[in-house]
Amino acid sequence: MIYERVALIGLGLIAGSMALAMRRRGLAGEVTGYARSQVTRDTARRIGLVDRVCDSAAEAVAGADLVVLCVPVGVMGDVAADIAPHLAPGCTLSDVGSTKRAVIDAVGPHVPQGVHFIPAHPLAGTEHSGPESGFATLFDNRWCLLVPDADTDPDALARLRALWEGMGANVDTMEADHHDLVLAVTSHAPHLIAYTMVGVADDLRRVTDSEVIKYSAAGFRDFTRIAASDPTMWRDVFLTNKEATLEILGRFTEELFALQRAIRTGDGAHLFDYFTRTRAIRRGIIEAGQDTEAPDFGRTKRGDA
Amino acid sequence: MIYERVALIGLGLIAGSMALAMRRRGLAGEVTGYARSQVTRDTARRIGLVDRVCDSAAEAVAGADLVVLCVPVGVMGDVAADIAPHLAPGCTLSDVGSTKRAVIDAVGPHVPQGVHFIPAHPLAGTEHSGPESGFATLFDNRWCLLVPDADTDPDALARLRALWEGMGANVDTMEADHHDLVLAVTSHAPHLIAYTMVGVADDLRRVTDSEVIKYSAAGFRDFTRIAASDPTMWRDVFLTNKEATLEILGRFTEELFALQRAIRTGDGAHLFDYFTRTRAIRRGIIEAGQDTEAPDFGRTKRGDA
Repeated sequence: MIYERVALIGLGLIAGSMALAMRRRGLAGEVTGYARSQVTRDTARRIGLVDRVCDSAAEAVAGADLVVLCVPVGVMGDVAADIAPHLAPGCTLSDVGSTKRAVIDAVGPHVPQGVHFIPAHPLAGTEHSGPESGFATLFDNRWCLLVPDADTDPDALARLRALWEGMGANVDTMEADHHDLVLAVTSHAPHLIAYTMVGVADDLRRVTDSEVIKYSAAGFRDFTRIAASDPTMWRDVFLTNKEATLEILGRFTEELFALQRAIRTGDGAHLFDYFTRTRAIRRGIIEAGQDTEAPDFGRTKRGDA
Repeated sequence: MIYERVALIGLGLIAGSMALAMRRRGLAGEVTGYARSQVTRDTARRIGLVDRVCDSAAEAVAGADLVVLCVPVGVMGDVAADIAPHLAPGCTLSDVGSTKRAVIDAVGPHVPQGVHFIPAHPLAGTEHSGPESGFATLFDNRWCLLVPDADTDPDALARLRALWEGMGANVDTMEADHHDLVLAVTSHAPHLIAYTMVGVADDLRRVTDSEVIKYSAAGFRDFTRIAASDPTMWRDVFLTNKEATLEILGRFTEELFALQRAIRTGDGAHLFDYFTRTRAIRRGIIEAGQDTEAPDFGRTKRGDA
């Protein structure tokens, strides 16, 4: 057991998966949970997602030695203000938000003396959301980034790291601004681009939605998975990682224009070289164990042959 | 048996999958094959991909009642010119190219009197290529678009349709220019965008390739699959479907700029509405049986929980 009592504020995909991953290895004595929505709390109770679903955040965090904010980034500050007076001295306060500088700015000022605030971000998730979408293996072999600062208590940090490792994750530490830039590349810009492509396809007059849907296996459907992610969460991500996301999108647009020009002018060599280079990155991701080598992400079953 | 002898010119992913899918159901009396590369021919012989690997295209097509061009779109015209004198009277000539107007323009002039030319495009594939990448189930429940014209022989068309249905595909017919526009949306623009995003990530100074690879599970890795597709094939696709691809990319850029402005100005409502709309398309694709509902394309195994 790493913590006596863990309180999860927000009971969506990440909190639910944490609860199940902690239960799998007995990492917490008790897990409490709170969600603002009555429906979510009722669902969590019905499926026994955590040991005790509370009807207020204050009740959930009382006596907890770890409190994890699992709410959209845009409301982290409000939730922190709400629970701050009820946090036990010496407890650790963490979060799972996708942006880190904004969370630090919003939550930091509310953290009482003697509470260890250590922001975190597990790089795991699916396109599904809500209390029934969690599963115990979500973090297995995925990365979790911890964002301590110079004043972070080493023991509190080591304990939080042990929890994430116990839940199956590999753990790295990273500085907040660098985190936000890295995530702008690996997550935020790709999500915005996927949302855009799906929006365009949905909006064409000369190609119907029914055609887009029927013929999506030609490539388009790969984009639709991340474009089906939770709209509230993603709205907040973009609003709280503005600069880095816009910087990457600027670079993206520049490259896209260069490729468009190569198409227009018939510059096949430019296209071929570009497309050859991008294969290496895919190879690296597979070798790093961060994706499957199976064709089509394994959704095509060769075994049926 | 639908055809006595089928000749596959080019022995990559699609030809290989066709050979295996025909064998699975006994759809062809004999399947011959030819590839320009000696290495590919040797591999195909070694793994018994087709019944007979020939050392010339002329030999492969001799006596065939169906000849399918499975080569990059950019060389279809040359290959057609090469085999035209050797085609049996009354045979059907087809292809599997990703663009159709360009193939018709390049191949059409070489088709001898009495040969039925019926372009086709199976909307199936994976990021893998070469003679060893094929598998018998590739076309199961995928669409194959046939592109006949007003003069196409109905019997020849029905027979080709029966072959594709026998290989597991659903078959639709479509006019060539509309095909190219639909595919620009569902395939060509998404591929170019994926290539671009992967190229940008590979090219940033402040984020290393190793960081991009390690942390790719946050969304980026979904793009890398299609950006690992065959560079020659895709160069030719863009060069032969210029107008439609550039039109869709123009629309894409316009939308992307609108979303960038929403981020810059903090217009959360615009973002939220946009992201909500795109979820419906994903739902449609799953309901149409064109993708899996399993989280993360099923690559995360919930069953391990």
